[in-house]
Amino acid sequence: MIRISLDAMGGDLGIEASIDGLDYYLARRNNDCDLFFNIFGNKEQIDKKLTRCKHIPQSIFEVFDTEDRKIASDEKPSISIRKGKGTSMFEAIAYVAAGKSDAVVSSGNTGAYMALSKVIIGTLAEIDRPALVSIIPNIKGKSIMLDLGANTDCSSTKLIQFALMGQAVARVLLNIDNPSIGLLNIGTERSKGTDALEGAFNFLSTSSTVNFIGFIEGTDITKGTSDVIVTDGFSGNISLKTMEGTMLYLMRLLQLELKSRVIGKIGGLFCKSAMKAVKNTLDPRMHNGAPLVGLKKIAIKSHGNSDYMGFSNAIATAISLAKSNFVSNIKESISIVEMERSNENHNKKC
Amino acid sequence: MIRISLDAMGGDLGIEASIDGLDYYLARRNNDCDLFFNIFGNKEQIDKKLTRCKHIPQSIFEVFDTEDRKIASDEKPSISIRKGKGTSMFEAIAYVAAGKSDAVVSSGNTGAYMALSKVIIGTLAEIDRPALVSIIPNIKGKSIMLDLGANTDCSSTKLIQFALMGQAVARVLLNIDNPSIGLLNIGTERSKGTDALEGAFNFLSTSSTVNFIGFIEGTDITKGTSDVIVTDGFSGNISLKTMEGTMLYLMRLLQLELKSRVIGKIGGLFCKSAMKAVKNTLDPRMHNGAPLVGLKKIAIKSHGNSDYMGFSNAIATAISLAKSNFVSNIKESISIVEMERSNENHNKKC
Repeated sequence: MIRISLDAMGGDLGIEASIDGLDYYLARRNNDCDLFFNIFGNKEQIDKKLTRCKHIPQSIFEVFDTEDRKIASDEKPSISIRKGKGTSMFEAIAYVAAGKSDAVVSSGNTGAYMALSKVIIGTLAEIDRPALVSIIPNIKGKSIMLDLGANTDCSSTKLIQFALMGQAVARVLLNIDNPSIGLLNIGTERSKGTDALEGAFNFLSTSSTVNFIGFIEGTDITKGTSDVIVTDGFSGNISLKTMEGTMLYLMRLLQLELKSRVIGKIGGLFCKSAMKAVKNTLDPRMHNGAPLVGLKKIAIKSHGNSDYMGFSNAIATAISLAKSNFVSNIKESISIVEMERSNENHNKKC
Repeated sequence: MIRISLDAMGGDLGIEASIDGLDYYLARRNNDCDLFFNIFGNKEQIDKKLTRCKHIPQSIFEVFDTEDRKIASDEKPSISIRKGKGTSMFEAIAYVAAGKSDAVVSSGNTGAYMALSKVIIGTLAEIDRPALVSIIPNIKGKSIMLDLGANTDCSSTKLIQFALMGQAVARVLLNIDNPSIGLLNIGTERSKGTDALEGAFNFLSTSSTVNFIGFIEGTDITKGTSDVIVTDGFSGNISLKTMEGTMLYLMRLLQLELKSRVIGKIGGLFCKSAMKAVKNTLDPRMHNGAPLVGLKKIAIKSHGNSDYMGFSNAIATAISLAKSNFVSNIKESISIVEMERSNENHNKKC
């Protein structure tokens, strides 16, 4: 049985997204395994909401009443660590940390969620901070990109760890046995970039455990040049948000062009339907559910403004990762590479 | 009179782009000032090409025969510095450095062009390396973004200098008296980002010489939140290329959607024309001509694959900057801020 902890109060929509999202997920799930949901939040509100849900049987959930205080979207992580105890986010994470649940899902404050997960669940050996991972649509299908903002300053060791963590995520979420891994840089030539990138390139290009294709550029992200895009959290965050902004901008430009033309009904309808189809392909709700990778347990970040559909996808991601041996796979691949690296250093010394 | 040096051999298309570009520019120019062009390259080929041009009178150009050796697109800057002498790029830059020309334009190898410009022309006091600047289209119009790849690792001093240089470029190329300046970060909160960003933020927010609006995010670039977008060359390069890739991706998605639908002729034609209009708005040739800012003279980088139309826009940019007191403006604003900063440090000590 897979057990999932839900922070029902997180995000802009709170239980409107989380409980309706659970209902939406259960209505569409394939019954390939037993599920149980530990729901954390305002019990009165949640129970009231649950009575209006059609697909959540009494037998598969338990509601845990938490304090009314909610971690604000702009609350500093340090404050959340000091004062977070008793909130729905804190308790949902703690339940997973205690082994009573297999994964946690929250739409709450990202910084606070990262900090609390790190402190309560803890990171794997050699991992300082978990990385924020996302699925990125591209012309060939989908790719995995990390880090997206958790680690602004990255050593070559961190970049190598991101490559391994991304590899594990791609195996589970994209169903690719041997995902190709690209290192995001300002050019594809070996001479380009920072010392950290050079160090990561040197190791990954000789490693037997990764399918490394070398440096890739910003234009390669949407080309789908690699299944996994590895970058530091600063560039990753800016790149991802640039992509979001550019998509909105281009759609807006097209809308303005459509409006500026005197058109026949057929043309108008036709063009709108094509644009709608593209919008659906890019709909962030379809890609919602970013794993915080590098933790000892599974924690999924759902977008703060995600609705029931987005939250249901975050639940689906949590269940996929929980079904796989996700954390132990990452642990294993990191330890293998740590071994390779120590051998490499040993050989250099000899 | 404005005198422009042209590296006629640079880029993928060589004289097909440079000489035809000059012809195209002159056919459309407004005769508000006298112009003279110093053209560097293979004299025989250039003269042959010139005879087929309708708008380049004998009186406004001189051709300088250079060695056949062309700086390759993948040649290392260090090699170009050692062996570049005699090439069209080297000589075109040297002519500007010698004060015989007001600006230089080249579509050649960016790294080599940067390195040669730095060595031959030299940078302004306090500037280590010139910054690569570009005009970015956004929903409100256009903005200036820098650095786009010249400086991968940036101190707060460099970011402050980029802000001032961007301000000067925006005044000339966007005709904005007091351009707003945004510092690209992974969040708008002051607590976000690196030490270099924090240092730059602290200074710019108190400076009397810049219209600083604070931190901006990747999504703000195409929103046009600020007239000038300041970032380090690593994130800037990745952000710009992510934008290019996303635009191509979205256009491709739309094309596939159009193809997948059974459509009426009107609809098809109508939609194509709207997309064509958007493509034109985003046409990189229209924004071609990136100034290398921070040099003692004006050097314009034209895109390596730009055609005659792109090159003509690079010439136009060179002329606009040459007509303004571009370099002395930058020199002045940098010195004012250096003064502000030393006063600030002095006051801190007192």
